[in-house]
Amino acid sequence: MTGVHSLPLDTPFLEVDLDLLERNLARGADDAAANGLDLRPHAKTHKSPEIARRQLAHGAVGLSLATVSEAELFADAGFSDIFIAYPVWPSERRAGRIRSLAERIRLRLGVDSIETAERLGAVLARDTVEVLVEIDSGHHRSGVGPTDAGEVAVAAARAGLRVVGVFTFPGHAYSPDARESAALEEALAIGQAAESLEAVGIEPTVRSGGSTPSRAATDSSVLTETRPGVYVFNDAQQVELGSCGFDDVALTARTTVVSRRGNDVIVDAGSKALGADRAAWASGYGRVLELPEARITALSEHHATVRIPDSKPVPELGGELRIVPNHVCNAVNLANEYVVVQNGEVIDSWPVVARGANT
Amino acid sequence: MTGVHSLPLDTPFLEVDLDLLERNLARGADDAAANGLDLRPHAKTHKSPEIARRQLAHGAVGLSLATVSEAELFADAGFSDIFIAYPVWPSERRAGRIRSLAERIRLRLGVDSIETAERLGAVLARDTVEVLVEIDSGHHRSGVGPTDAGEVAVAAARAGLRVVGVFTFPGHAYSPDARESAALEEALAIGQAAESLEAVGIEPTVRSGGSTPSRAATDSSVLTETRPGVYVFNDAQQVELGSCGFDDVALTARTTVVSRRGNDVIVDAGSKALGADRAAWASGYGRVLELPEARITALSEHHATVRIPDSKPVPELGGELRIVPNHVCNAVNLANEYVVVQNGEVIDSWPVVARGANT
Repeated sequence: MTGVHSLPLDTPFLEVDLDLLERNLARGADDAAANGLDLRPHAKTHKSPEIARRQLAHGAVGLSLATVSEAELFADAGFSDIFIAYPVWPSERRAGRIRSLAERIRLRLGVDSIETAERLGAVLARDTVEVLVEIDSGHHRSGVGPTDAGEVAVAAARAGLRVVGVFTFPGHAYSPDARESAALEEALAIGQAAESLEAVGIEPTVRSGGSTPSRAATDSSVLTETRPGVYVFNDAQQVELGSCGFDDVALTARTTVVSRRGNDVIVDAGSKALGADRAAWASGYGRVLELPEARITALSEHHATVRIPDSKPVPELGGELRIVPNHVCNAVNLANEYVVVQNGEVIDSWPVVARGANT
Repeated sequence: MTGVHSLPLDTPFLEVDLDLLERNLARGADDAAANGLDLRPHAKTHKSPEIARRQLAHGAVGLSLATVSEAELFADAGFSDIFIAYPVWPSERRAGRIRSLAERIRLRLGVDSIETAERLGAVLARDTVEVLVEIDSGHHRSGVGPTDAGEVAVAAARAGLRVVGVFTFPGHAYSPDARESAALEEALAIGQAAESLEAVGIEPTVRSGGSTPSRAATDSSVLTETRPGVYVFNDAQQVELGSCGFDDVALTARTTVVSRRGNDVIVDAGSKALGADRAAWASGYGRVLELPEARITALSEHHATVRIPDSKPVPELGGELRIVPNHVCNAVNLANEYVVVQNGEVIDSWPVVARGANT
């Protein structure tokens, strides 16, 4: 197969297969329920109230988001229980926005330092915001060491914040063969952090973690909540990490072949449609759904170079290929809308409401 | 110095220093004029009619763009001479859009195959669109071999297109120590392609090339036109390639320190604000304007990890740092607007009108 039947739209665009999306949503919810974990999916992946509503319909307890502006947009869309899983710094202007949000929804924030906890407490009305202490479980990004969680929690409680638990992001699961070891480290760290809170008399009711690649190994004897994001669509990274198969990929970028040279074709989607993500272990700049043996060997802003294996016919000029982005969160953040497809026909389009909502 | 004075806006945002922008615009125009080259800057970098107007005011002959949708938006904004420097495939719907554009502006397209030339000719009214044959000068992306330019030109002319010359993008200049060699190869290839057109009786009036890193070495005895894009802002790639200095960088992402750990700080801009571009030769995921010795060692969607050298104080939580993106074109394509600054004060904001215009 060298292409797919054309849709009546100019490429490139992001295409969501509704049935696959629904299957992924159901599986994510079923897996969490089977493990006894609350599901609080990370909506930064899709940035779409339509998809978030479907997640709640499947039993999610609320949403995770990354920024105050994302939370504002989802609150505007009617969502009332949001965790900003980020160590938000309450600059003067942002503090006012957080106060406004806390007045209209149940708001939970991440905090990973005594200074931030004290400042948050100083600018927010007492007990209006819940916080989780962020800990580092091995990804080495933000978060305090697990045994330091207690002192941050004490500072937060003294500052008038409602400390309800701890959270981490086991992002080191994004590496070959690290999915299970990252989940083990996550459980160990969350367990230590929970003890650290108990030691200072604060109940770690919420113990939140999880990621799409590590979610099958998330330890529900330690954690209470999981926050996967990518599972709604999946992407080439998940396929290459072994976290899903190509037949679980619900989002692709529809592209057109615009140039050919030997075994290489150029399609009209580049880093401005797919994102430039390329982990050191990735096979290329994404994958081709129709041609899993092909490799995307180079990426410019509007060109992806696809090397077709000798065993396959080289797609014709004007033919269409569906590219599976490496990292779907960044591909989505480039698009204004999703084209929703069912049984190969366009049935709807959904705006990417929180695209670019970084503040 | 561990930070800069704060602006009354929540981070992250893209900040343009107007005086540096104007200096870059003037230099780009002066360099082209001194070399006797027409300047047709690539507006895909900035996607802003405001900046494009300033480029024309500095003497640019017209604009280069990458997509039909970019050209539509710039035509809507009053620009009347546009080259889509891309091998556009005229699918049925896109062909109608090209016809409409050609009715209202002077439109030039790239073509790099006989098939595309014939199809373009079949869907466009005779002589309504100019074309340049794209050739590969060593970047090995789109474009035919220089000596094959004539046969594509003949096919285009027979199909009713007005062939006015040849073009290339010497993208292989984006590599350490390759700026001059890429320009030499560009001149050689453009010269061969021009001869190939002359041999079939077609005058190669326009011989277009150029890029920001190679522009100082563009051979004006062979080329007639240069199409730099990044020069308006510059970026970390240009600094690291030696094409400019930090004091030539007119655009930065203003960020806030949200987390600290030893010599590392986390700022609140990641791949969703900066883009994920990272060439193999890059020092990291961008640079810090205030701390050129620092390195950005990791990037997530909303986190950049900045390693501060031992010799420098670690910035405080809440402090602001200005990040120079690796590849400014992709950073701009993530933002809805520019915050325009002069002498450290916000004086305006300009919309990124063609953000996401990929079709």
